[in-house]
Amino acid sequence: MKIGILGATGAVGRQMLECIAERQIPADEIRVFASKRSEGKKIPFKDQELTVEVVSQERLNGLDFVLGAVSNSLSKTYRPMVEKSGAVYIDNSSAFRQEEGVPLVVPEINGEDALAHHGVIVNPNCSTAITLMALAPIAKLSKIVAINACTYQAVSGAGMNGIKELEEEVDALAKGEAVTPNVFPAQIAFNVIADIGSELENGYTTEEMKMQNEGRKILHLPDLKVTCTCVRVPVYRSHSISATVVTEDHVSVEDAKKAIAAFAGDHLVVDHTPMPLENSDHDFVQVGRIRQDLINENGLTLWCTGDQIRKGAATNAVQIMEYLLDHAE
Amino acid sequence: MKIGILGATGAVGRQMLECIAERQIPADEIRVFASKRSEGKKIPFKDQELTVEVVSQERLNGLDFVLGAVSNSLSKTYRPMVEKSGAVYIDNSSAFRQEEGVPLVVPEINGEDALAHHGVIVNPNCSTAITLMALAPIAKLSKIVAINACTYQAVSGAGMNGIKELEEEVDALAKGEAVTPNVFPAQIAFNVIADIGSELENGYTTEEMKMQNEGRKILHLPDLKVTCTCVRVPVYRSHSISATVVTEDHVSVEDAKKAIAAFAGDHLVVDHTPMPLENSDHDFVQVGRIRQDLINENGLTLWCTGDQIRKGAATNAVQIMEYLLDHAE
Repeated sequence: MKIGILGATGAVGRQMLECIAERQIPADEIRVFASKRSEGKKIPFKDQELTVEVVSQERLNGLDFVLGAVSNSLSKTYRPMVEKSGAVYIDNSSAFRQEEGVPLVVPEINGEDALAHHGVIVNPNCSTAITLMALAPIAKLSKIVAINACTYQAVSGAGMNGIKELEEEVDALAKGEAVTPNVFPAQIAFNVIADIGSELENGYTTEEMKMQNEGRKILHLPDLKVTCTCVRVPVYRSHSISATVVTEDHVSVEDAKKAIAAFAGDHLVVDHTPMPLENSDHDFVQVGRIRQDLINENGLTLWCTGDQIRKGAATNAVQIMEYLLDHAE
Repeated sequence: MKIGILGATGAVGRQMLECIAERQIPADEIRVFASKRSEGKKIPFKDQELTVEVVSQERLNGLDFVLGAVSNSLSKTYRPMVEKSGAVYIDNSSAFRQEEGVPLVVPEINGEDALAHHGVIVNPNCSTAITLMALAPIAKLSKIVAINACTYQAVSGAGMNGIKELEEEVDALAKGEAVTPNVFPAQIAFNVIADIGSELENGYTTEEMKMQNEGRKILHLPDLKVTCTCVRVPVYRSHSISATVVTEDHVSVEDAKKAIAAFAGDHLVVDHTPMPLENSDHDFVQVGRIRQDLINENGLTLWCTGDQIRKGAATNAVQIMEYLLDHAE
């Protein structure tokens, strides 16, 4: 089995390699692709070293899976090449998430959707994936009608450059030097910025609307209503979300806790408040602070947090590949 | 006119002194009180130096106003002494906020309530004050039925020690040293903690329930329903809140914007997302990102942020005193 990784030198691409190693995916060959700038660079993988290549049709040919960790525009460029190669393309960009016939998958929630693919399967938005991991067990108890979510998103959501920008700002401020934001719209160190993605006509950002658009597709709830506020916080790599969920029928706090505790990939936390620092570099999503909503009788309010690079991106993509391998005829 | 300040060496106490100077409150004498440990310490005020004293009945006597910036338990201890002195007690603790006959006041919202005092007037919780400053103009357009709020609270909410803890953690991490949380339940640097106050039986924290309990009293809405999630973030001194507000009648985004722009103390921000760093050390509350809620037809979602030490505490207390002076017969 041969796997290719597009964007292998980025935060998500590197993590994909780690996840492939950790999860012991039986790969006979892994080809790592990145931009011209990184060509020839060595990336450690298990006891080998992989050499970064530039994408070409020739080098995509022969692969069984291609995992994409590149921008929307690059993903659009590479998709026809991957399709021509015959490999299954598992993409982390948002370019094809709303395309009909392209499954949008969180394996624990709607893994079976992946089996109906036509060559391309996509990963959800990172905050959406983490939030839905917390809410999917509740959706099994009663249909979800609405979600009000506020996010606390780590700088890793902007990739290695986002992580670097926070590090550099903290360092500069410690030295009394000026800070020049580049990746984020303003200084993120010791600040919070409710401005992720670009603003739409309705006042929400593209990032905020993903929670509704992708939630509808993943949960198979075309009428789901979601109000979302996405906020960048000075945390390195795990996202947290405060969510109020309204269901068709009443779901008790106790039943919700039981369902979450039993859901693969979720860790129910009852003795303290789960925090991003606790799950950084882990695959599980922590869910805690589950309480009756004080506005809606059929509402629950909770707090969830998970590693953006792992479950919010790389792990989820590798899990999709795993799911296909496990369910191959 | 003579003013006393309880807890004058703390973050809020010091800020009260600055606000008194900035707002040119005509004080003939200011007595600054703190613990035995700080006795004799000098605090600069305008071109003078004030000497820290220990509280005594004798030194409270003769004062016209006492501003309290101490813990609930100390405030309970001092209140009878202040009452005996005949001074009006304007308290920032949460000890008496729900007591009948004790006005809970944000001057721009319900200043007239202060006039009905019986010797004690109280300041609201900091996140509540900032959120209500954003929502009060909307309440004038239509009765508020419910609020769903998520906070992004600065470390200054825990006083000077909270600020110091974040500084020391950032410093220790830069040196590769271990971090030992003391003020907060866990490391706050590069983390977020949804755990402020103590947990109640319904799963909400005392801090979270303040938004409902105090909101009801300040807005004169005894049936107001509030679901709140309070989260500490690594920001030094301004709180931010994402709030969805549901009103009895529909309020358009445009009408809400106009009302907020016209409300004393609020700055409507339309060209970018307001941020805590922008309003730190300012008295105004910034309100932005006002948009139609996607769940409730009569809902609006917005983002507001204001300085916790100033409008969330010290400024508000000094404004209450100012209001009484302006409305004295």
